[in-house]
Order: sequence, then C-alpha cells, then structure tokens
Amino acid sequence: MASLCLMTALWVLRRPLLPIHSCAVRGFSSEACEKRSYTPRRALTYVPGNDERKLMKIPSLNADCIVMDCEDGVALNRKDDARHMIVRMLKELEFGRSEPCVRVNSMSSGLTADDLNVVMKAETLPPTLLLPKVQSPQELDAFAAQLNASVGHLGSLPKDKKFNLIIYMETAVGLMNLVETCKRGHALCSEGADFVLDGIVFGSDDFCADIGASRTADAKELMYARQHMVTIAKAFSLHAIDLVHIDYKDLDALRKQSVEGARMGYTGKQVIHPSQIPVVQDAFKPSPERVEWATEMIRAFEEHQNSGKGAFTFRGSMIDMPSVLQARNIVEFTDAIGDS
Amino acid sequence: MASLCLMTALWVLRRPLLPIHSCAVRGFSSEACEKRSYTPRRALTYVPGNDERKLMKIPSLNADCIVMDCEDGVALNRKDDARHMIVRMLKELEFGRSEPCVRVNSMSSGLTADDLNVVMKAETLPPTLLLPKVQSPQELDAFAAQLNASVGHLGSLPKDKKFNLIIYMETAVGLMNLVETCKRGHALCSEGADFVLDGIVFGSDDFCADIGASRTADAKELMYARQHMVTIAKAFSLHAIDLVHIDYKDLDALRKQSVEGARMGYTGKQVIHPSQIPVVQDAFKPSPERVEWATEMIRAFEEHQNSGKGAFTFRGSMIDMPSVLQARNIVEFTDAIGDS
Amino acid sequence: MASLCLMTALWVLRRPLLPIHSCAVRGFSSEACEKRSYTPRRALTYVPGNDERKLMKIPSLNADCIVMDCEDGVALNRKDDARHMIVRMLKELEFGRSEPCVRVNSMSSGLTADDLNVVMKAETLPPTLLLPKVQSPQELDAFAAQLNASVGHLGSLPKDKKFNLIIYMETAVGLMNLVETCKRGHALCSEGADFVLDGIVFGSDDFCADIGASRTADAKELMYARQHMVTIAKAFSLHAIDLVHIDYKDLDALRKQSVEGARMGYTGKQVIHPSQIPVVQDAFKPSPERVEWATEMIRAFEEHQNSGKGAFTFRGSMIDMPSVLQARNIVEFTDAIGDS
Repeated sequence: MASLCLMTALWVLRRPLLPIHSCAVRGFSSEACEKRSYTPRRALTYVPGNDERKLMKIPSLNADCIVMDCEDGVALNRKDDARHMIVRMLKELEFGRSEPCVRVNSMSSGLTADDLNVVMKAETLPPTLLLPKVQSPQELDAFAAQLNASVGHLGSLPKDKKFNLIIYMETAVGLMNLVETCKRGHALCSEGADFVLDGIVFGSDDFCADIGASRTADAKELMYARQHMVTIAKAFSLHAIDLVHIDYKDLDALRKQSVEGARMGYTGKQVIHPSQIPVVQDAFKPSPERVEWATEMIRAFEEHQNSGKGAFTFRGSMIDMPSVLQARNIVEFTDAIGDS
Repeated sequence: MASLCLMTALWVLRRPLLPIHSCAVRGFSSEACEKRSYTPRRALTYVPGNDERKLMKIPSLNADCIVMDCEDGVALNRKDDARHMIVRMLKELEFGRSEPCVRVNSMSSGLTADDLNVVMKAETLPPTLLLPKVQSPQELDAFAAQLNASVGHLGSLPKDKKFNLIIYMETAVGLMNLVETCKRGHALCSEGADFVLDGIVFGSDDFCADIGASRTADAKELMYARQHMVTIAKAFSLHAIDLVHIDYKDLDALRKQSVEGARMGYTGKQVIHPSQIPVVQDAFKPSPERVEWATEMIRAFEEHQNSGKGAFTFRGSMIDMPSVLQARNIVEFTDAIGDS
Repeated sequence: MASLCLMTALWVLRRPLLPIHSCAVRGFSSEACEKRSYTPRRALTYVPGNDERKLMKIPSLNADCIVMDCEDGVALNRKDDARHMIVRMLKELEFGRSEPCVRVNSMSSGLTADDLNVVMKAETLPPTLLLPKVQSPQELDAFAAQLNASVGHLGSLPKDKKFNLIIYMETAVGLMNLVETCKRGHALCSEGADFVLDGIVFGSDDFCADIGASRTADAKELMYARQHMVTIAKAFSLHAIDLVHIDYKDLDALRKQSVEGARMGYTGKQVIHPSQIPVVQDAFKPSPERVEWATEMIRAFEEHQNSGKGAFTFRGSMIDMPSVLQARNIVEFTDAIGDS
C-alpha cells in the first residue's frame, strides 16, 4: 500500500509530462532550470564527513543517496578534517548507483564559506549539496553568492552541471517563510545561480527544539508541520524528505513511520544507521500486488474509455481519473526503480 | 453530536446577523455580492451529464444538490453529448427541492468555453456552476471573462440572477494560492462578474495524486489539507464540501467519515452513489437530543443572564458564550432544514 | 515526558541566548521591545471581574497567571461593576507570585475604550493585558491608539513599564491574518506603542463556533488550527496558550490534554476552575526522571565532544544536536521554575 505514494510522488517530480500542471503556474518557467532527470532519494543516508571507517563502508550500503556531513555529525574541532576527507572520498570511493551528496553547515553558523571553499576544489565534484536551517529567501541569496564565489575557478557552469540544492526546513520561521524561500530558489536558478532547487528535508528534531515540542512515538505533535511541508514541496515539484527515526534499533517502528510518510507524499526519509536503509527503501517502493492492481486497472480503464461511459467500477470500487493517474504512476515508477 | 457542526456551519453562512464579524474584515463588502439566501448542500451528488438513465432518476434521489457533470464522469468523446443532454434535462426534469448544478471542465482542460457556450444557451439556466482544479486567482479572471462571453446574449445579469460559483481545491498549488483565489473571487463579483463565489470543494483524490499521497481509511494523510481548506472557506463565508468516500458499498465507513467532516466544519460532502445520499444528509443534520440540549441551554442561559452573573454551569459543564452561540445555531438550523 | 516540551518552549522565549536565531530574522529587532524577563504562564486562570467572592480567593490559587475578566465571564449589565472591582482588587489583593492580568472586551464589541479608561486609572496597574478576538493588524493599530489615549495621564511609558499584550486567535479570519497581525504587533512596539506583544491564546470555542466545528474529546477537529497557531507563536517568540478543557470535573482528561499541548510546544493552558490549576501547572513542568536524563546526557555529550567524534549514542539512542539542545533547556527551566 505504502508504495503507491512514492509512485505518484515520483511522478509528480516528472510533472512536465502532464499538461494540466504548467510550470508557469508553479512559479518557475525558465528552461535553464528544468529538471534534468529523476534521481531516487528514498534513503537519504548520513555519514559523518570525518569518520573514515564509516565513509569506507558507503559502497556496501546500497543507499539511493549518501550525505557526507560537515554539519551536526561533526564536532567543531573536526570540521576541517571532514571537509578534506570528503574531497578525498569523492575522488577515491566507488559510489556505484548511490548519489554522493555533501551537507555543508548552515549560513547562520558562519562556516558555509569554509565548507564550500574546500569542497568545491575537489577533483570530483558532488552533484548535490544540502543546506541546513534555511529560514528565509535572503539566506538563499547569500548562499548563491557564496557558492558562486567558491566555484569561480570553474568558470560559468553549463545548466547540466549546476548543483542540485536540497534545503532543510527546521524552524518555525523557516516553515513560515518556506513558500517565499522556494519561489526565490527557483528565481535564483533562472537568474544564473549555480544550483537548481531540488528538494526539502524536514529537520524534525531541530524543529521540535525550536517550537518547544517534544517527539512522541507517533509524531502527532508534528502533523501540521510534516503535512504542510510536503504540500509546499509538491507545489514546487521538489523532493520531500521525511523526518529521522531516532531509535535506530526499532526497525518495526521505522517501517511504520516510513510507510506513513510515503502515504503523505514524501519521496524519501533521512537515515542515520545502515540497518535502516533497506527498511526505508522498501517502504518507498510499490508492492507486487499494487503493481498488478495498477496494471490491470489501467487495462480495464482503457477498454472502458473506448466504450464511451465516463464512470466505471473496478474490483468493487468506483474509479475516477485520479485513481487511474495513480495506477499509471505505479507502473511507470516500477520500471524506473528496478530491483533496489 | 455530528449535527452540531452543520448547525454552526450553516449559521456562519448567514453571518450578517452577527455584528462581530463584519464583511469588511473578511475582504468583501459589496452589497451587489451579498449572499441571497442559504442553500443547503449536504449531499453534493454527481450524475454523469451524458447518462440519461441516471439523470432520469434525479427526481427520486431527494438530494440537496445535484451536479450534472461534464468533467471526470464523462469520457472525452462524450463531452458534447453531455452538454446537450444537460440542457435538455434542465428544462424537462422536475428537480423539486434539489438544486440543479452543472460542473464544467477545468480552465486548464481547454474545454470550459465549449461547456459554457452550450449550457448557457439553455432555456432553463442552472443557478449554480462548479469549476474544477482552480489553482490561482488568474484562473478565476479567465473564467469570469469566459462566462461573460457565454452569457452575452442574456444582457447584464441582475444581482439576484448571478450564478453561484463553487470552485475545487485539488492540487498543492491550488491550496497554496487558495486565500488569494478566494479574495479574487469576491473582488470579481464586486467588479461585475456574472457569479458569486459561494463554495469550495475538496477534490481529495486529485489532490492525493498531485502531492503523491495515497488515501487510507482514516484519511490521516489529508488532515492538513482538509482542515486548512475548511478554515479558508469559513474565513470567506463559503460552503465547504468534504472529500468523496470512494467505497460506496461501505455505508458505515461513509457515516463515520461524514460525521468527522461535519465536526471539522464542513457543510456538505461529495456523493457518487444514490445509497450515500441519506447517510450523508443525516450526518449533517442535528440529532433530536442535540436540539433538545440546545433549546434547554438557551433557556437556562437567558434566565442566568438576567440574574447578572457571567459564567454559569449547565448539566455539569461550565458554559461560555461560544457554547451558547452553538446552541442557538442548532435551533435556527433545525427550523431551516425541515424533515429532509 | 510532557514537561520536556515546556522546557524547550520556555527556552525559546529566552531565545536571545542562542545566536543562530537572530531577532532580525524574526522580524523584530528593536531594542526598545526586547523581552524583559521570562514570565511563566502555565495556568492562565480566569476569574470574572465582578465576582468579589471568587476574586478574594486569588491569593490561595497558586496560579502562575490570573486573568481578571471584563469579557465573556461578565454579563453585559455588569461590565462597569467588573471594571471598578478589578481596579480595587489590583490595589488590595496580595497576588504573591501570581501575575495579575486584565482581559478587556474585544475591539469589535465597542467596549474596549470603556474598559481601558477605567482600568488605566488604577493606582496599581496590571503588568499584562489580554485582548480577545483579534482578527487583523488593523485591530492592533486601533487598540494601540486606544491604549495610548487611556494612559495619556501617565505620560510616556518607559520601556520597562510597557504592558505585556496577549492576543486571542479565535476566528478563521484571525488565523488567516495571524502572521501579519504578529508582525504588526512587533512593529507597533518599535513605533512607540505602550505594549509589548508577548503571547497568543487559542480561543478554541469561539474558533469552533466560527468555523462551524464541534469539539470532540480528543480535539482532532482542531489539530490544524492548534498546531498552526503554536508554530506562528514560536516564529515570533511569543507565549502560546492552549485551549480550555471545558469539562472541569474530569481532571484525568485535563491532564492528558495538557500533556498533549505541552508536547506540541504550548507554554501554558487556559483554566476555568481552581481544581484545574495544579494539574495544568504540573503537566507543563519537567519530571525528575527527565531532569536526571537531561543532566546526564549533557555531561556525556560534553565528554564526547572533547574526544572529537560528532555523532554519539546515549542510553541506546543516537543523539544529535537538537537532542542536546532539548536537554539543556530542561535543566535551565528547572532552575527557573522552582517548586511551584
């Protein structure tokens, strides 16, 4: 059941196929910043950037997305170690089908420039950057300027070499300003920034600390923020990455929370331990029964369409266009994701 | 219990009676666009516009509101059949206490003009139009222009002949822009458009497909959108029509979901099968116990008021002004709805 | 568990200690309107302003916050009695550690000027005023002008004598405009108004009546409004006061709802009966186990930090910076609240 969501979520990210959702309506129309291709990011997996032992295990993780971290996972006196270690790993590691990403420190930390100045000198650049604690459109302006300065030695980046940028929503102010921040992100791309805004991560624990909430098992206290964020992400055709499941030993609870997030429209989930990866990636993938259901329903619908009657029933349910759409998404996604 | 909601909801729609909520605050003050009278729309019932057999059953449905559909319920190659069939039905059918409405295709479909050009030539015009997938204020501008063109042969419509317009919120962008869309809807009316914005429908299945969510039995994944929409509707004094219950055979689940929607402030619910109508209309109606409670409480309050003490208890609960208000709404609504 | 929330919530209100959340980002930077010190308001306790018997009991209530009411708790023909009674009580009562507050009538009632003109002549002025049913920034402008007129005889108030202002969110329009209202509140302070915006109360029953919802035991129908409001409050560093538990005899249900609100980030709760006070104040206070957990975790983290590894585990959980932050908040709050 859960996998239905990801399918449709994924499809949303390939929206240009669907004429009813024009890019103009979504506030970004520049050809220069169109999505290039869909990158699955079901398990967004953190690895501390200065922990060589853990970094060396990346090739065995089989994760969609690897985040080599300069931020919370790295102590202040190890930041510089992390930056240089990441540069080395980008060159030496075999990432296979995993996407190598780098999380820099937030603009408010004052450390972003140092992070970028080292990482952008890497022989092998990461395709994707993650920026924590974004609170306002102005922070994206400042980040764009900093990134531009840090990649000056590369000359002007062609559009297919721009970095994917994934931002974090982790404060009340960040949520309040998120629509404006996303609008600015798309506009900056059109105006020549070196990134394409591509996703939003729900930094749930910082968010809780910021609003004075406390995490409970069912995350009821985060319902508003969690569903509000996914709605904004989809309005701007962005990946939406769900909250961390902190108790990494309880894989049953992780599976339940992953399925729940997928059902809300999230396209992936943050992962802090290797054992979480297969659970999360499985939860964001359609079941064989669902794929069978979708395939059969589309066949039935096409037959019905030709007969000229609008509404029809399939296996006891009244089926309408949105349901047909969901079925199509499932089939398309299954082709795209393969066996992982 | 459930029916309490509808009562107060209904009352909201007759808001002018209450001085504390001025129209100016709500962003619309033009006398030309005031509500004319309250139209109950508990069961908003879809009938495919080209299905003569189903259309002929309308007089037996006893539904508050009938939507003769040109959109999802009608295959592409039957759209024109539907338009002309609806024109004939508007003239020939005996709608009784049911309100005859027409759902045209969305502006983004490119079919709206064709729909309106045929339907607006009807000898008997429908009082109410439904416009799907509205995503921005600009779409209302375009619709107003199209409607104006399609009714040109009727001359300038007096204010009591303007069409009620009910719009659909069914995408992330639509929800993001909904406040601005409603403001524009009220402004257009003041500026001479041929409609009065009168309601919002939660197009939950298109919304799910749009954000990549999947429907579950308790609709938890829609909590944010569902409650956000009803709040905006009430801020603009509009009808709020809740999601469809797709499994039309499970009337117990339908009843539960209807009661839940009524408790959230929804004033009605979309219905896709005749068997759903009495269940929905009953759920949006106050119970005899509730009416008795309300009547008694108002009596007790009035006695207490005369004695000069502000706070008082009634049947074990501390009662304040909002509770008195709710009780009054129940009594007023019961008078208005009659036996249906 | 519940008390964790209040701790962090409280801490948010002392935000200036944390460099990453600058006041500028939050839209208010004027030194003139900075918070002076943290005032606990766990139980915001209503007492009708004209009920001498209940007012005389205030010294025995041990409530953080006492609201002497001119609004809903006072019948129309007793408003003037209430105003003068409150003036006398402000002078004669021994409030002890309780904060004496006055709730005036809403701007839309037309009674605010009469309330303020009497209360502001008091020999002992209340530090804090509560303004119900605020629906727009313009209402704050009008209130600021009225307050200014009513305190004219006092001359220009120095910044440490400005009144704390707590506003009520209790309509759909009020929620829709709340971000703008809070921005205006902070701006008015910088522009010389005689108040500092300091909190928001969720007027849940008026809100329900306004949107046509009905209260259920678990308040599910208010999830959106309740969590939206707390997020806005925290974005502006304001106290967030949760809904009333109407059934004052059911203290178990009260405790459950209080804990739930604290977990969402609320810093206090409205109280309508003396028996509710200790239950509420306890729910918004950290448990000894939680304080022990927090103290130990901070110690472990500091040791770990010195060793240079970023991520670490404590008692079986992966601990990150937000968790450390929460722990610090608990310890700081425990020091601040004392034994009450």
